[in-house]
Amino acid sequence: MSDNAASVHPKVWAAMQAADAPDAPYDGDALSQRLDAAFADLFGQPCAVLWVATGTAANCLALAALVPPHGGVICHREAHVETDECGAPAFYTHGAKLILADGEGAKLTPETLDAAIGQIRKDVHQVQPHAVTITQASEYGRCYRPAELAALIRRACDHGLARHMDGARFANAVAFLNCSPAEACGPVDALTFGCVKNGGMGAEALVLFDPALADLVRVRRKRAGHLQSKGRYLAAQILAMVDGGLWLDNARAANDAATEIGAAAADRLLHPVEANEVFARLSPAERAALRQQGFAFYDWGDDAARFVTAWNARADHVSALSRALVAL
Amino acid sequence: MSDNAASVHPKVWAAMQAADAPDAPYDGDALSQRLDAAFADLFGQPCAVLWVATGTAANCLALAALVPPHGGVICHREAHVETDECGAPAFYTHGAKLILADGEGAKLTPETLDAAIGQIRKDVHQVQPHAVTITQASEYGRCYRPAELAALIRRACDHGLARHMDGARFANAVAFLNCSPAEACGPVDALTFGCVKNGGMGAEALVLFDPALADLVRVRRKRAGHLQSKGRYLAAQILAMVDGGLWLDNARAANDAATEIGAAAADRLLHPVEANEVFARLSPAERAALRQQGFAFYDWGDDAARFVTAWNARADHVSALSRALVAL
Amino acid sequence: MSDNAASVHPKVWAAMQAADAPDAPYDGDALSQRLDAAFADLFGQPCAVLWVATGTAANCLALAALVPPHGGVICHREAHVETDECGAPAFYTHGAKLILADGEGAKLTPETLDAAIGQIRKDVHQVQPHAVTITQASEYGRCYRPAELAALIRRACDHGLARHMDGARFANAVAFLNCSPAEACGPVDALTFGCVKNGGMGAEALVLFDPALADLVRVRRKRAGHLQSKGRYLAAQILAMVDGGLWLDNARAANDAATEIGAAAADRLLHPVEANEVFARLSPAERAALRQQGFAFYDWGDDAARFVTAWNARADHVSALSRALVAL
Amino acid sequence: MSDNAASVHPKVWAAMQAADAPDAPYDGDALSQRLDAAFADLFGQPCAVLWVATGTAANCLALAALVPPHGGVICHREAHVETDECGAPAFYTHGAKLILADGEGAKLTPETLDAAIGQIRKDVHQVQPHAVTITQASEYGRCYRPAELAALIRRACDHGLARHMDGARFANAVAFLNCSPAEACGPVDALTFGCVKNGGMGAEALVLFDPALADLVRVRRKRAGHLQSKGRYLAAQILAMVDGGLWLDNARAANDAATEIGAAAADRLLHPVEANEVFARLSPAERAALRQQGFAFYDWGDDAARFVTAWNARADHVSALSRALVAL
Repeated sequence: MSDNAASVHPKVWAAMQAADAPDAPYDGDALSQRLDAAFADLFGQPCAVLWVATGTAANCLALAALVPPHGGVICHREAHVETDECGAPAFYTHGAKLILADGEGAKLTPETLDAAIGQIRKDVHQVQPHAVTITQASEYGRCYRPAELAALIRRACDHGLARHMDGARFANAVAFLNCSPAEACGPVDALTFGCVKNGGMGAEALVLFDPALADLVRVRRKRAGHLQSKGRYLAAQILAMVDGGLWLDNARAANDAATEIGAAAADRLLHPVEANEVFARLSPAERAALRQQGFAFYDWGDDAARFVTAWNARADHVSALSRALVAL
Repeated sequence: MSDNAASVHPKVWAAMQAADAPDAPYDGDALSQRLDAAFADLFGQPCAVLWVATGTAANCLALAALVPPHGGVICHREAHVETDECGAPAFYTHGAKLILADGEGAKLTPETLDAAIGQIRKDVHQVQPHAVTITQASEYGRCYRPAELAALIRRACDHGLARHMDGARFANAVAFLNCSPAEACGPVDALTFGCVKNGGMGAEALVLFDPALADLVRVRRKRAGHLQSKGRYLAAQILAMVDGGLWLDNARAANDAATEIGAAAADRLLHPVEANEVFARLSPAERAALRQQGFAFYDWGDDAARFVTAWNARADHVSALSRALVAL
Repeated sequence: MSDNAASVHPKVWAAMQAADAPDAPYDGDALSQRLDAAFADLFGQPCAVLWVATGTAANCLALAALVPPHGGVICHREAHVETDECGAPAFYTHGAKLILADGEGAKLTPETLDAAIGQIRKDVHQVQPHAVTITQASEYGRCYRPAELAALIRRACDHGLARHMDGARFANAVAFLNCSPAEACGPVDALTFGCVKNGGMGAEALVLFDPALADLVRVRRKRAGHLQSKGRYLAAQILAMVDGGLWLDNARAANDAATEIGAAAADRLLHPVEANEVFARLSPAERAALRQQGFAFYDWGDDAARFVTAWNARADHVSALSRALVAL
Repeated sequence: MSDNAASVHPKVWAAMQAADAPDAPYDGDALSQRLDAAFADLFGQPCAVLWVATGTAANCLALAALVPPHGGVICHREAHVETDECGAPAFYTHGAKLILADGEGAKLTPETLDAAIGQIRKDVHQVQPHAVTITQASEYGRCYRPAELAALIRRACDHGLARHMDGARFANAVAFLNCSPAEACGPVDALTFGCVKNGGMGAEALVLFDPALADLVRVRRKRAGHLQSKGRYLAAQILAMVDGGLWLDNARAANDAATEIGAAAADRLLHPVEANEVFARLSPAERAALRQQGFAFYDWGDDAARFVTAWNARADHVSALSRALVAL
């Protein structure tokens, strides 16, 4: 039960195979050239879209375009860029500092942003913040409501910060919030639009709302060895996702499964279930019991578990897990 | 007519689809775990094999493991790392210097290696060489014979250099040389074993003959955003290539096409045709005439063209081009 | 009242002027060549010593020699490398992560070291610690006793960590501890031996107890633009310090002044006074009153002040400040 | 006989000692604050001036402010940044590429600039030039005449390049050209104004003609460990040089000595003598003979020698060397 190793959606497979005829290499092919328009449509504003293989690459290419090597990026102290990317942000930005901020549910607030900035002396001896990165949905599957997000971004702008959104599970957030993609994203400079956890194979879309950034990122993508010569297969995956709304269908399916599991574990929840993750208090014995019944999940510290549902969560499996949780 | 945007071979597609069932993420899946053994078999010695999406990433991860930031890498002045990777080696190695050496056909020799090293003062003011990177087949499709290669590598060892081989077209070299993979590679520390230009989609194998290097590269791969969560689809591509010898079959097909074209352009050749590339003197008018007949190729300076053949070169297309060349 | 902008000691001036006759450039001069032996004497073990202009450069050159770009360095969360070097460690190490640990008085303990390491998963997604840096005396002027230090370093070794000591105020620590330099330093790989705050002009000694490190640092020093061509003037400063024990005389003078001030502010102290710094609770009004009397110091948060004494603290000034503190 | 290890001029010593009274640390002192005005006066235009300890640091801080990590800097293939800084430009710029251009006497021309740029494809696979660095006087002691320089800089502007001047021997160039500093420098963004080879101890002035660059460089200087806490001693050196024209007096003395030596070796010269360097054909036997008479110089390849004169070249020594050369 995980989303980042799940099978590839049949429509994605079909789109990839339809892309098999030779076309221009790199991103000169017809599919790669369609990405900008497809996302401009989705977000109701012009943008430039580049494919890359992983969310880490997308996040870090974005940050490297927004922050100089001597600058800082404010992120939540439990953000993926801080805890799970092996220092990739420092590699891509050439040593920019991640400045850690707090916030319930791994969500930043205007106040925690202020607090993180407030402790920095404005002199040459301390690293100054240049950007903020916001994760939607957060590492705990929590979603920023449009008004919350707008307030946070306004505060970031007041501080003169560039804005990046890590949307590895952006689809799950939009599905939960039931708002437009633009509302779920807010006015940021760059968005990592995740596909891999949502039925894709190996393609994420890096959406740049400032075209000047795109020129920079295109160079940096090549320099990072992320410019694949048969890029059309990546573009095909992304287009398969956004064409016809597959991205939201898949996200809804995963969210629904998490909601069902969350309901079964209602009195055990560490966090409200909003996207496709369930964090539930479970003793070692309880976890062992569940595993014996065939369920797979991550330990979360000593006394809890993390369940992640995917686009293809089977109803019978979800029900079985829910029953098992209730029965504990 | 190019190899780096060609279609994916049906056996590669089949292997990818066979990998669709969920498995452990990253490189914990059964296919990724099979890579070491598959290549140990191929090369007759233990090795560790990591997939990455591109040859640039493979080359640069290898070099970064072999050279410190303050060191230098000797390469031919027309090597891909110098001319076509947008400074990716400097990015990955944190600023190591490419030290340019000469050699006919974009091949290094013991003498040109000596010459490149000989001009460097052994003091703290000049960047000292730590490694050499050798391209097999070279940027002009030229292949190092086993004895040539052995002599070059011996000289590199005499100079205390680590050795990397860029084998974006290693299959074409082995097919031409008709020797064992080990003979075509020589005792190097790391080999970029290309698949993408040879019928793959987006997976190259980085072969590390020193297991300690592999631990280092595994970390650096993650840090560079190249650790894909559904890595089994990359492993599947590589295994499809080496299982049953598809890599050599494809390379032979491409080489044969190039040989036929080369024969038709025998009096125009800038380089002997050994792998799957043909460099032929062609005036602008001649190139225009060929293009009008529907043939695609690269300009090579003002008076020549570069033809690259792929695994799926169609016999009728190749014959047509050959006839057209003869008829010029 | 600060140590890092104080005048240069007359003996240091004299040594610099005695070095005015031309000698070999860089570190080929006779004085630079004497450094190794002078410090071997001081520490009772072989070492290699390189001059650099600043403590930040010394710290970061050391860390860059001990930690790969993808590694981490454990430091106290109030350590100078984290709070006052503008990200220089990330610049020099090419992005290694500072992993923050706790500890009273800005001193690490075996337990806080364990805690910092304990929260790191041993996988490729998280940055792994490779070294620890210990500040003697700490940012609060606190000194590690030899036994404390030995226990901390043993624990660091248990974790396989390389060890660096930031000794910007090492002299003050040794003067306080009244032990040998070797006992105050412990078995570390590299020590930043501060001179600038202790009567020097612009020279710190980077002491490397592993000669192999020295070769590496020599190259990195040049690469960082820190290899001065008239290095003999830096060597002269350092030798003036260690020859005849000037470093300890100066440190004792500074410590004594701090002790006297600390005694006068005994009921206001945030930290015991051990080296040449006094942290005292002082309201804004009290600080204003002191400043009106002509005393200079740093604000420390809203309700305290930081007094730093130098080698040339005048007895009458110190007494006047002490009386003023008592009179508040 | 060398300029980079010569004694410090008495006026520089005097200025340093006059700076001994405590003042604000770093560059907050009165002397550092005077630098901008002093150089604005010299160059007839506003500028910001930062001291650093070495020419390598000055050059590289400037380049890092002008070129992104993925960009390139055009320099002469014999420029100091390429041949004698151990890769420091790559370290400071995070991997920008030095793009090598030709030119007689180690001087670039509009044509060699064009040629270097002309070989670069304007695509994402090749590193694009962002800046040019010009050495005045060149590595062979050759000086750009104002008209030559103006033409070169115009061409650089046509190509959209930022401009840096390495003026390690700028004083010698101005003394030779007998023009204003502004004419000898041309409209560049940044100038490394050398003092160390011209009677200073350990301070070079980095002159930034765009104040926005200065803010950036101030941060980067700290980050590189080059912000000395007792910066007033560096400012004092630089002010001693420019106040009252000492910099030109010293340069003239060095140039005159080189001219005399050059005249004595007129039929042996590899380059016309313009600044303070003489390159003369001398067989190994001849060099041995000179050395036996007590003269010091560098070998220059197998059949020549490089003589460098300093501000304090003694007339009797110069005459003796001249006689010895004539007598060979």
